[in-house]
Amino acid sequence: MLIENIKNPADLRKMPLTELPKVAEEIRQEVLNTVSRSGGHLASSLGSVELAIAIHYAFNTPDDMLLWDVGHQAYPHKILTGRLDKFPTLRQLGGLSGFPNKDESPEYDLFTCGHSSTSISNALGLVVGRDLLKKTNKVIAVIGDASLAGGMSFEGLNHAGHAGKDIIVILNDNERSISKSVGALSKYLNRIIAAPVYNKIRLDVEKVVKRIPRFGFRAYRAARKLEEGLKNLLIPGMLFEELGFRYFGPIDGHDITQLVTTFRNLKDLQEPIFIHVITKKGKGYKFAENDPASFHGTGPFDLATGRKIASGTAATFTQAFGDKITELAAGDPRIVAITAAMPDGTGLGKFAERFPERFFDVGIAEEHAVGLAAGLARIGFKPAISIYSTFMQRCYDQIIHDVCLQNLPVVFCLDRAGLVGEDGPTHHGLFDISYLRNIPNLTVMAPASPAELQDMLEFALTRSGPVAMRYPRGTSMPGKTSGAPVKSGKAEILRTGKDVAIVAIGSMVETAVETAELLAKKKIQATVVNARSIKPLDEEVLEKLSGDIKKIVTIEEGILEGGFGSSVLEFIEKSSIKGVKVRRIGLPARFIEHGRRQELFSKYNLTPDAICDVIIKEVIG
Amino acid sequence: MLIENIKNPADLRKMPLTELPKVAEEIRQEVLNTVSRSGGHLASSLGSVELAIAIHYAFNTPDDMLLWDVGHQAYPHKILTGRLDKFPTLRQLGGLSGFPNKDESPEYDLFTCGHSSTSISNALGLVVGRDLLKKTNKVIAVIGDASLAGGMSFEGLNHAGHAGKDIIVILNDNERSISKSVGALSKYLNRIIAAPVYNKIRLDVEKVVKRIPRFGFRAYRAARKLEEGLKNLLIPGMLFEELGFRYFGPIDGHDITQLVTTFRNLKDLQEPIFIHVITKKGKGYKFAENDPASFHGTGPFDLATGRKIASGTAATFTQAFGDKITELAAGDPRIVAITAAMPDGTGLGKFAERFPERFFDVGIAEEHAVGLAAGLARIGFKPAISIYSTFMQRCYDQIIHDVCLQNLPVVFCLDRAGLVGEDGPTHHGLFDISYLRNIPNLTVMAPASPAELQDMLEFALTRSGPVAMRYPRGTSMPGKTSGAPVKSGKAEILRTGKDVAIVAIGSMVETAVETAELLAKKKIQATVVNARSIKPLDEEVLEKLSGDIKKIVTIEEGILEGGFGSSVLEFIEKSSIKGVKVRRIGLPARFIEHGRRQELFSKYNLTPDAICDVIIKEVIG
Repeated sequence: MLIENIKNPADLRKMPLTELPKVAEEIRQEVLNTVSRSGGHLASSLGSVELAIAIHYAFNTPDDMLLWDVGHQAYPHKILTGRLDKFPTLRQLGGLSGFPNKDESPEYDLFTCGHSSTSISNALGLVVGRDLLKKTNKVIAVIGDASLAGGMSFEGLNHAGHAGKDIIVILNDNERSISKSVGALSKYLNRIIAAPVYNKIRLDVEKVVKRIPRFGFRAYRAARKLEEGLKNLLIPGMLFEELGFRYFGPIDGHDITQLVTTFRNLKDLQEPIFIHVITKKGKGYKFAENDPASFHGTGPFDLATGRKIASGTAATFTQAFGDKITELAAGDPRIVAITAAMPDGTGLGKFAERFPERFFDVGIAEEHAVGLAAGLARIGFKPAISIYSTFMQRCYDQIIHDVCLQNLPVVFCLDRAGLVGEDGPTHHGLFDISYLRNIPNLTVMAPASPAELQDMLEFALTRSGPVAMRYPRGTSMPGKTSGAPVKSGKAEILRTGKDVAIVAIGSMVETAVETAELLAKKKIQATVVNARSIKPLDEEVLEKLSGDIKKIVTIEEGILEGGFGSSVLEFIEKSSIKGVKVRRIGLPARFIEHGRRQELFSKYNLTPDAICDVIIKEVIG
Repeated sequence: MLIENIKNPADLRKMPLTELPKVAEEIRQEVLNTVSRSGGHLASSLGSVELAIAIHYAFNTPDDMLLWDVGHQAYPHKILTGRLDKFPTLRQLGGLSGFPNKDESPEYDLFTCGHSSTSISNALGLVVGRDLLKKTNKVIAVIGDASLAGGMSFEGLNHAGHAGKDIIVILNDNERSISKSVGALSKYLNRIIAAPVYNKIRLDVEKVVKRIPRFGFRAYRAARKLEEGLKNLLIPGMLFEELGFRYFGPIDGHDITQLVTTFRNLKDLQEPIFIHVITKKGKGYKFAENDPASFHGTGPFDLATGRKIASGTAATFTQAFGDKITELAAGDPRIVAITAAMPDGTGLGKFAERFPERFFDVGIAEEHAVGLAAGLARIGFKPAISIYSTFMQRCYDQIIHDVCLQNLPVVFCLDRAGLVGEDGPTHHGLFDISYLRNIPNLTVMAPASPAELQDMLEFALTRSGPVAMRYPRGTSMPGKTSGAPVKSGKAEILRTGKDVAIVAIGSMVETAVETAELLAKKKIQATVVNARSIKPLDEEVLEKLSGDIKKIVTIEEGILEGGFGSSVLEFIEKSSIKGVKVRRIGLPARFIEHGRRQELFSKYNLTPDAICDVIIKEVIG
């Protein structure tokens, strides 16, 4: 195989251009082999094979610095930068990360990344620094069309175009983000692609348009349509030109020769360059080409048939959310649902189908998603906005300023809260309890099971102020909760015992119950509380436990600083109850690596066994 | 006076168009009279007088819904919507807010606002809701050119332009934000204004351009220049048209008749409309026209001379920061400074003058500011990024993902942390301790005095990882700290006493010292600790206090949930020291209204007297 001889991009650059299609074929096969076994971001990585090869071939990496926005398309880049041997360990604990990772390859992965729309800003920082250091290496940011629509990308373009510095932005336009692209920008890019430049008819069209009076009544719509066409005929990529970039494209992103030639031609320009490359998600694997959404982030699948290898049938929190919001919306026309480019990931697919006019996928634009929810709530609607916990960080100010300061009834549904598993440090949702519970007016809750999530959602949608609910990836605790009605600031007691009280929140309730069962075998009787509400706390229950048992263990799937356990400490401080011993259990103050959820629970001592040990040694003993 | 008869916009609409200039004159005088006494956002409000009149005159407010982005330009709007009588109470405790405020006027101020770039998203939420309700009232968002450059605005435009709904965005373009505008968008707007549409020469210019080969060597630059001019000649506002809006303008924003006529003409269009209005900041008051930056947010001033009425000469934290970063940068070429549209507010004016090539004002683009800092740090620089605490919420994810996950040496300087005073709930910086101290790799500190800030900044710039420093508006505690060198996780003990230990952070250290003096008069001897570092905590000092004194009072100028006091509770829990009583003092879990800092300290019991009482009654007693 050719790729076995590529230990780094310099080896690639020694090859003749004619061999590169073969390299592409081998990389594609390698990606397919590994991802069909390990799962991962298949479709984007298949779409970027030729692009990765052409960039490393035409530019002098790593002296020329390359950033992949989001980074889920970086598998070919990994294979080309000395990581072929390790590639089969992709996304496994201790193995290669599914995203660029600075610890894995400090030379070629300048940033550990996984969130969208950061590459232009980061690249401009490198550019500005390079210029201060009087160096001349190129800086290249590769960004997808969906990421480009994120506000931070626009901020970066706005600065870069103004500064006029030597920077290359490559738009990897695959015509759809994780789901179908949304927004005017996407429409605009499609127009560029659809309309080749008919220089010959341009002037004629223009004359026609100019003869129609601007405010004519019937002619108005027609003129508008003509004008739109005209603008694109004149100069494709005008929008980027207006922002100070020199636009080139569109270019076929699977034609290596054209890519390499273009990059070589443009290398010597020393101004902001915007290269528009068209790729196909899932390229070269027909099942992924036909259904790129389902092969965006996929579990293991059968290579020959494209069929997913099922990993369990228990209802997930995500499905429970999607089912319930759809059911509730059928009975209440005020319920609307909002997501940011994750209609399937957040379980809203069914809702979108059934209530298209009340469903809003705003694309990768979390800030706008919350701003939109605020407007809808202000005019009488009940928006439920579902965003992964880690991405909810991107609209923190909007949660505070646009919603909670107004005390508007928006329900924030934080999916993938806690450890997400294989996606790793950029995707774990570990900070939400502490960054949410300090916000006035906001109720913060976490369900212990998919069924409880449904009750909690119903409850949340009856409130007159904002509510946040966090819940994990996967499933938890079928049928173990009591099913008592969800009430404001009310916990439920699942088990009583005199020796220790375990107060768990959300995904950790199941672990708490199992811990109590282990303790019981050692003759230690534990009370188990499903806290349900993080803010407000159930002070009545806590007061009783503090008085009667005096030994409280809290468990949460989140970082401990300022978390749920701290809110229990705060309660005890405020209530001045004396002699209560509290032991908080959760995740330590560090970024957590990738690996399966269960593996990470073991490693970080969030299993019933480990917690049982801690309780025996440190709390009871 | 005419304005005395305007109890609401309906009264305004009864007046003949010819009387409106007189109304404008009276409003302007009213704004000048009040703001010269109370201080406030003068220049923007003077610039929006005619615009506010014309909107309320041409549209049927409040049925037609009007949003003012940021809201610091809303004084004329307040006067026109029934708040003339109360206007002299502007920005005083219990008086009118300096921003739109839903509690003050639920009809006319749909959102309490104060942060930038939210209006298009909020308006689109109203629009979408209105359409679902099958209503037809108009929704108007007025946004400044600086706010338009914020990423969230772009996200809102991108969605609104795509959705094609009936929404009106009015760009109030005053050619400069708080400081001089930055970015390609601003340049673009200036080009529109500067270049009238020469229809006659358009085709000729185009022919010339097309004859120059695109990649010609010498001709390249010339062709580029011609092309740029051409694009603007063809269709002004093309950028907004590309995003799906119908662009109209530019229009003179001080010509009421033209404004009213334009609004009336466009009212019946039912698509996304973008109206570009040119105004002058400080319009009608020559001192403000000549120096709009200093009259953006101003203290009281003498109306006749424009001279500011000095409010004290003690060095502020902000000045101390500006002086020190400039001094340090002189000795270290790797130090760079970044701000988001607040070069003066953050004290970076001097740095910008002395090191223009190392100074980056990115405009209202906090996300990009942090992304840029990450790039600069990655290539070896030491960025100090200064943003007000409340606005740092806008780049929370970038702090986590772009900087702390990479463990890059970026120094986050959070000015205006704590109660900012007259700007009120949108501007208080009360959440930062809890939202920062949960981030791995990040050191979090707070200086007790401007002098200590300088030592802390010097220390922070020697670290290999990220550091955040928070400090308040104004000044504090001249010369009362010990001046001991700043070290990682080290507190300083300012006073020793056996009865109680007061552990204060940042701005509250001075209050702690004064509290101890009051206690001493009552024969209670207090130890006073200046904590300096929130994360890591000085565990050695805390362990000693926990063992020896066993009564610890924490004081912080921030919200208590997850705050500094909670970190002390967490330490005691972790260290398993028994029998320690902790009482946390700080701000309650609610949004705090506007008023002078001292007034708010009194109201919320953050004065030495109030704290002394709490200690005697609840801790000692």
